[in-house]
Amino acid sequence: MSRVTPISGFPEFLPSERIVEQYFLDTIRETFELHGFASIETRAVEPIERLSNQGEDTDKEIYAVRRLGASADDEGPGLGLHFDLTVPFARYVLENSGKLSFPFRRYQIQRVWRGERPQEGRFREFTQADIDVVGDGTLPFHYEVELPLVIADAFSRLPIPPFRIQVNNRQIPEGFYRGLGIEDVTSVLRIVDKLDKIGPDKITQLLTAADGPALTPETAKQVLRLAEISATDASFVEQVRALGVQHEILDEGLERLAAIMTAANEHAPGLLVADLKIARGLDYYTGTVYETQLIGHESYGSICSGGRYDSLASDGKTTYPGVGISIGVSRLLARLFSQGLLKSSRSTPTAVLVALNNEDERADAMRTAAALRQRGIPVEVAPAAAKFGKQIKFADRRGIPFVWFKGPADGPGGDTVKDLRSGDQVPADAASWTPPTEDVRPGIETPQENS
Amino acid sequence: MSRVTPISGFPEFLPSERIVEQYFLDTIRETFELHGFASIETRAVEPIERLSNQGEDTDKEIYAVRRLGASADDEGPGLGLHFDLTVPFARYVLENSGKLSFPFRRYQIQRVWRGERPQEGRFREFTQADIDVVGDGTLPFHYEVELPLVIADAFSRLPIPPFRIQVNNRQIPEGFYRGLGIEDVTSVLRIVDKLDKIGPDKITQLLTAADGPALTPETAKQVLRLAEISATDASFVEQVRALGVQHEILDEGLERLAAIMTAANEHAPGLLVADLKIARGLDYYTGTVYETQLIGHESYGSICSGGRYDSLASDGKTTYPGVGISIGVSRLLARLFSQGLLKSSRSTPTAVLVALNNEDERADAMRTAAALRQRGIPVEVAPAAAKFGKQIKFADRRGIPFVWFKGPADGPGGDTVKDLRSGDQVPADAASWTPPTEDVRPGIETPQENS
Repeated sequence: MSRVTPISGFPEFLPSERIVEQYFLDTIRETFELHGFASIETRAVEPIERLSNQGEDTDKEIYAVRRLGASADDEGPGLGLHFDLTVPFARYVLENSGKLSFPFRRYQIQRVWRGERPQEGRFREFTQADIDVVGDGTLPFHYEVELPLVIADAFSRLPIPPFRIQVNNRQIPEGFYRGLGIEDVTSVLRIVDKLDKIGPDKITQLLTAADGPALTPETAKQVLRLAEISATDASFVEQVRALGVQHEILDEGLERLAAIMTAANEHAPGLLVADLKIARGLDYYTGTVYETQLIGHESYGSICSGGRYDSLASDGKTTYPGVGISIGVSRLLARLFSQGLLKSSRSTPTAVLVALNNEDERADAMRTAAALRQRGIPVEVAPAAAKFGKQIKFADRRGIPFVWFKGPADGPGGDTVKDLRSGDQVPADAASWTPPTEDVRPGIETPQENS
Repeated sequence: MSRVTPISGFPEFLPSERIVEQYFLDTIRETFELHGFASIETRAVEPIERLSNQGEDTDKEIYAVRRLGASADDEGPGLGLHFDLTVPFARYVLENSGKLSFPFRRYQIQRVWRGERPQEGRFREFTQADIDVVGDGTLPFHYEVELPLVIADAFSRLPIPPFRIQVNNRQIPEGFYRGLGIEDVTSVLRIVDKLDKIGPDKITQLLTAADGPALTPETAKQVLRLAEISATDASFVEQVRALGVQHEILDEGLERLAAIMTAANEHAPGLLVADLKIARGLDYYTGTVYETQLIGHESYGSICSGGRYDSLASDGKTTYPGVGISIGVSRLLARLFSQGLLKSSRSTPTAVLVALNNEDERADAMRTAAALRQRGIPVEVAPAAAKFGKQIKFADRRGIPFVWFKGPADGPGGDTVKDLRSGDQVPADAASWTPPTEDVRPGIETPQENS
């Protein structure tokens, strides 16, 4: 057997980190359900032809999947692992349109796979948590306001730094570029999308390069001016108008983004920032697009993104327009862990270890454990009878807060429970003793708050 | 774009079925945590060489995974999707042995992939829920008694038919076969494992076939006699002894299985059945093996299986013996759904739909929704202002039990809430109204109980 080595881009958590991840996933799920989103999961694979041509360099990043025992002709179309949850969801909607009620609100928390070059916060296997609303034929505009509010509600329940949701409407750069006479809008969009990463000088170089869009220096300057506009209200409209570019698609985009900013400010002033450089790499977005930065971690990039897609799901007769946002759960956690911003109070759910005097008492110890579990307390029995010091060390190493000691088997009662943190040991009855509520489950600690 | 069609073996649930699946997964997780098992998840892929040679015909069922953009030489060892959670767990233990505390109790609920021929209850992508305990160097025997008790605790909390956990020790058939002079023990085990499926006559044919193990008719008869022994206590030992076969491995197996039966009967009489035909197809099991039948659904086969493995995880210096059981969650649900034994009371988490008089009132309706969510009530606002009949129909189609009607915007209070089942409509205040506890979340219904 080969050596055991990690596979780059396929991270795994230790049990204590997994407890933090579970806390995040539980909180996100709880929030999504409070907002009336129904859960679905889709299969991990899609026909490759459905996954391809969705933008950027995603095609070569697709993981193809094939049975080792398959002969060349007994498999159907080639299958690949999904690289996001939006493309599979659009397919699911088409496949089940007759059995779903529209507008359909769904959330989906699953792993996805992208064969990108692994780097900080970029993995080849990672978990996303998506909400989408899809309509049949039409989808009211107000969902574009509602979705970032749901995300903000989820984030407000999580122990994370303050955040900022940036929003744009793709029609604004598209209309603006067309108004400037630019034909290859997609190429320019993809270059501008890198502004935060590579800076304005490099962007100008790329925009004016002869083997690129080959814009004139003045046109490139206008493109950059648009990208640099941002505002926490509808005032961005005037800033765009001041650039003097005219196009009807631009007008439509400005009107829509202004409406989002106005409506969002009614519910959560300052939460959304209109930021006209936001574009998103995936080609299926047609209008509003979202990104999210952690304040103080801007260079890390977006940890939650999405947008409106009007034509991703279409069966030829009906089109199902949608809007969705995806939390990059793995990406978010990777940042918080690497910065030492989060940890779990213990590495196991166990709140109480029942110690053993000798192996003959295991059956009795198991009954004590069962009595405690009846009241929702996670318990395990010691792996072996040993000196109590050794059993206490076993619990302490895992962060288990309480050790239960059985009284003499021939007398009534006599059990005691020891709090390993205070050292206090008190009489206790398995039929009624309960730990403090905050000790029943592992706690999530944010170390910087304790320092 | 190609037609949208299901992929055989890759089932997906509708939202109402997914609610049932979530209820099962939540209950299983809750039980595992009450018993002190820590959650981990492993990456979906392993080096193919680690997945292969684990028994049966699993090799050709492995799904190989490869980046579309990979050149022949820039990928490391070939990767495949895991076909169970035990092999990845063993690798995880080796990789993290310095950071884990032993004995290590972990649970793992994830999807796995097997390229089997799809049939009822056999999928190519499915969800398993595993518990395992792994020791460093040694693993006390008592875990082989504890694990089926944990499973029984989980099952007792689920709305499923009564069940029976069958247990055997592989040393019993192995020692017995060796005592009979059989050399190719593995081949005979694999044939006997099919007894329930194909019956004793066909088994005899396979055992005596010249191109098979080529047993004599008398030897084949002895093999079948052993396989037909079962008991709910340690009395199976005498039945085996009566067959007159002697071997030291047999003695060891009988002693161990008798100890499990005796200890298990102390905690849950009748729960375990010693059943000497149980073998399990995977080669890594070395001692105790488990299967689980739903009573009245025996022909469906096992829905929860596992066993002890003494040498799956070894780095050459240390061996980490383990014992584990895996609930076939997808397999279990497929049976219950196909037999009409389970359904959800609604297709969405939403308990209350806030109706809209006109679109101008959306902001106010969203505030009402937020007030209800504050108390943990899942709420959504109607997708559009429409006649109340239409909005009630929208809620009714999804099984949403309550519709909230806003009072006049210019007066104080005046809101009412309507229970769509009783038709009762009563005054309500968003700051204090709460639905009955059983209506806050979707209920899981077992239709046969209501008929």
